[in-house]
Amino acid sequence: MSTKKDYIRPLELKHGRVDLNHGAGGRAMVQLIDELFARALANEYLGQGNDGAVLPALAPGERLVMATDAHVVTPLFYPGGDIGSLSVHGTINDVAVMGARPLYLAASFILEEGFALADLARIVASMASAAREAGVPVVTGDTKVVEQGKGDGVFITTTGVGALPPDRNPGGACARAGDAVLISGTMGDHGMAILAQRESLAFESEITSDSAALHGLIAALFDAVPGLRVLRDPTRGGLATTLNEIARQSGVGIEVDEAQIPVHPQVAAACELLGLDPLYLANEGKLVVICAPEDTDKALAALRAHPLGARATRIGTVVADPHRFVQARTPLGGRRMLDWLTGEPLPRIC
Amino acid sequence: MSTKKDYIRPLELKHGRVDLNHGAGGRAMVQLIDELFARALANEYLGQGNDGAVLPALAPGERLVMATDAHVVTPLFYPGGDIGSLSVHGTINDVAVMGARPLYLAASFILEEGFALADLARIVASMASAAREAGVPVVTGDTKVVEQGKGDGVFITTTGVGALPPDRNPGGACARAGDAVLISGTMGDHGMAILAQRESLAFESEITSDSAALHGLIAALFDAVPGLRVLRDPTRGGLATTLNEIARQSGVGIEVDEAQIPVHPQVAAACELLGLDPLYLANEGKLVVICAPEDTDKALAALRAHPLGARATRIGTVVADPHRFVQARTPLGGRRMLDWLTGEPLPRIC
Repeated sequence: MSTKKDYIRPLELKHGRVDLNHGAGGRAMVQLIDELFARALANEYLGQGNDGAVLPALAPGERLVMATDAHVVTPLFYPGGDIGSLSVHGTINDVAVMGARPLYLAASFILEEGFALADLARIVASMASAAREAGVPVVTGDTKVVEQGKGDGVFITTTGVGALPPDRNPGGACARAGDAVLISGTMGDHGMAILAQRESLAFESEITSDSAALHGLIAALFDAVPGLRVLRDPTRGGLATTLNEIARQSGVGIEVDEAQIPVHPQVAAACELLGLDPLYLANEGKLVVICAPEDTDKALAALRAHPLGARATRIGTVVADPHRFVQARTPLGGRRMLDWLTGEPLPRIC
Repeated sequence: MSTKKDYIRPLELKHGRVDLNHGAGGRAMVQLIDELFARALANEYLGQGNDGAVLPALAPGERLVMATDAHVVTPLFYPGGDIGSLSVHGTINDVAVMGARPLYLAASFILEEGFALADLARIVASMASAAREAGVPVVTGDTKVVEQGKGDGVFITTTGVGALPPDRNPGGACARAGDAVLISGTMGDHGMAILAQRESLAFESEITSDSAALHGLIAALFDAVPGLRVLRDPTRGGLATTLNEIARQSGVGIEVDEAQIPVHPQVAAACELLGLDPLYLANEGKLVVICAPEDTDKALAALRAHPLGARATRIGTVVADPHRFVQARTPLGGRRMLDWLTGEPLPRIC
């Protein structure tokens, strides 16, 4: 249809670097979007090529759920994933723990001038593959470039929307005394995978992030137990912080049995070495579930029947407590307070 | 209900600074969210306090529209606005130019360690005020902190969702030869407000950004002309780049009459001083409209009846052109090509 050549040369994906033109709105930006982003993430919505995406109507009665997450993880690549897959998984999980079926993602990139286009392409390919696997397309996006020294390679904010069935209302404020507290697997894998990489710790076998999209697991869980009270993915601040959030929102206490909490042996060993507690390390593919006591067995069975919940277990109980304390019975029979994350922060874990 | 004190001291909003704890997921982050973000942006959805927001169903048949924008503008504060109001206006406009009624915003913040909490509070207050004025609440959010030197004060990504009526389908690919090209007012105000501030240019009176939410203007326009072909807000790359995008998407040429394009005299003077072309400078409260020739008068009347469109005017015509060229008739009777933005980029204008 056109004889006009849009670009003089194709994007230099092997040795090229991000420059300020890639964010300036002109031809270089269009080229970056066409040849790198749109090609990898291709879908009918992104292909509309407008300032936003037009998406189908939800089913009648379905409510909209919306969640957003900035991703600033460092290093950008680590065992088990990278900032690309993380930015897909993290936001899908935030939508899914609301009880909603994740439908679409928007992605915004803040690139640092000088960042290797090859690394960007690798990240976007990983995003595309995570989105494809999850069945949740990236339907719209944005790219900005900041000067060298004003960013750190790439930051990615993803925003997800999902559809929440009319009769489903889990939430952090729904836990009641007597409820069971379950988790879907080992704690601390993502956080320790990042920290081990940063500290260049060498183990017999690599510690791998658990980064995964949980919406399939959650759908199976709702099929088994429609009246789930609380779902959370224990990311920043780990299990201990997530339980404190729930206790605060619901006005209850929570007691857990530390011996019941599965921790990968290598994560436990690395924690000992670094003086860290796995209950405060981030997870990116794990679920905290609170359900009525009579639903416990059904919920555990549903979790364990899914590959992402094979090591699911009951770890504790919601209790009446005006102080909203979260406490752990230790393996030696003592008790310790699991307060919110305090002390040294673990920055940029996600 | 609780006797437990959540925080020892209130947030030090006057002299305090962002530290890495504010992004670590623990108590300091909850405090920042409670005392700064949630307080300023307060609404029923944000108040749910979960990982995402549960929002009402759309009306039957309404399609979902989604748009996202990262904001990295520097300086953070400038005449006519700041990164807070810009991040609200920019994303509302991206949703509105799709023909949709903007409903909700999600906001994610990437903060640099050491950033003054007072500046952050000022930005969030400005965001809150822009969102309130527009009637589009910020319903969910996220905060991350990066080390000093790995960011630049604050970056804000906003994502908007809106509802698109069943019979409305404007889009960049819908321009046809013979259509009229209109703009809603002066070109280049936002871009020059930022650049003048950066260059410390002094003028008799300040150049002010045109940053504004356009959904009210657009709603009035659709009431007058339901079959609008194309709507765009000419941001990065300015009018010239936006017209090239439309020409590319629609497979047409566009001819504009430069003498018809309103430019604020001070913007024109500053452009001359800095060697810049106002047609390539960003706008954040202006609209490009393409409509059937017979709708021109109705569209212009609707635009001019609204405070944000008082200086609306017809600037040109869509033409058949396999080369998809955008050309301007100059005031002296010549012609010049308005190519995509090339040459020196104008980084971080939005």
